[in-house]
Amino acid sequence: MKNLLTAVLLSAAGLAHAAPPASPPSSPIYGVTLPEGYRKWQFIAPAHETPPLDELRVVVGNPVAMAAIEKNQLPFPDGTVLVKLAWKRVQSTESPAAYVPGAASTVQVMVKDSKKYASTGGWGFGRFINGQPADLAQHQTCWACHQALVKNHDFVFTRLAP
Amino acid sequence: MKNLLTAVLLSAAGLAHAAPPASPPSSPIYGVTLPEGYRKWQFIAPAHETPPLDELRVVVGNPVAMAAIEKNQLPFPDGTVLVKLAWKRVQSTESPAAYVPGAASTVQVMVKDSKKYASTGGWGFGRFINGQPADLAQHQTCWACHQALVKNHDFVFTRLAP
Repeated sequence: MKNLLTAVLLSAAGLAHAAPPASPPSSPIYGVTLPEGYRKWQFIAPAHETPPLDELRVVVGNPVAMAAIEKNQLPFPDGTVLVKLAWKRVQSTESPAAYVPGAASTVQVMVKDSKKYASTGGWGFGRFINGQPADLAQHQTCWACHQALVKNHDFVFTRLAP
Repeated sequence: MKNLLTAVLLSAAGLAHAAPPASPPSSPIYGVTLPEGYRKWQFIAPAHETPPLDELRVVVGNPVAMAAIEKNQLPFPDGTVLVKLAWKRVQSTESPAAYVPGAASTVQVMVKDSKKYASTGGWGFGRFINGQPADLAQHQTCWACHQALVKNHDFVFTRLAP
């Protein structure tokens, strides 16, 4: 009994001295993190990215994003978060005419904060691989491409699938 | 005032004689209807169906389906509803390496009711085009294919995208 008590006390002391929970990993440049619960958000649209990436993708939006999309509201309001999930495209073994998600490749996040991200159209970007942010070089490409290609749609490629 | 009252009374009489709201269109064989609000359900996985169909697809599940999937519960419990939304796959004009949803093609529904659909693995099937059920011949193909190809996964092709 005494040994058990000692063990419990030592264990409690250990917990008290444990490091505080680490803050979630955030993207270079923007400090964007993976939002909690995004896997359960409403989907906006799927996509197929052709080789060399050869991925299947689904873009989901948080409630702020979905409300804006329902109203055709552009630009997206502050608080909008869009997440693109991507997987390698692999042939179904059960239905060979179909291609389905293989391994997860990247999860990409856009966060609207018109003040914080004023110099990049109001958007902060994050690209994650296995839950960890990709490197600085990858994050230096986000804004230039969105700015060049979709400035007429508040720098967002995805449209609501009908 | 008298004319207004007459108009109101006539209008009320007209309402009383109006046809009751039509019941939603249901599939042949199974009597499956399009479930309300499915466009906002959680997604399970995307897919790419190669030519000749050449479609992008997303399968979503109702809360019963998602709870079962989270627990790896097979067979799916009664009350499970799965919906597959499909669109023609078209090249993005803004990002040519990407293909995105074009026109909606079909919406396909699976409903689990182990008693009602005992002769088809517990599943009722519905295939809809522009909100209307496809014909009898199309519905005669559902069960044979699901039975032949995915009997080890409770006759469901889709798996949760990781």
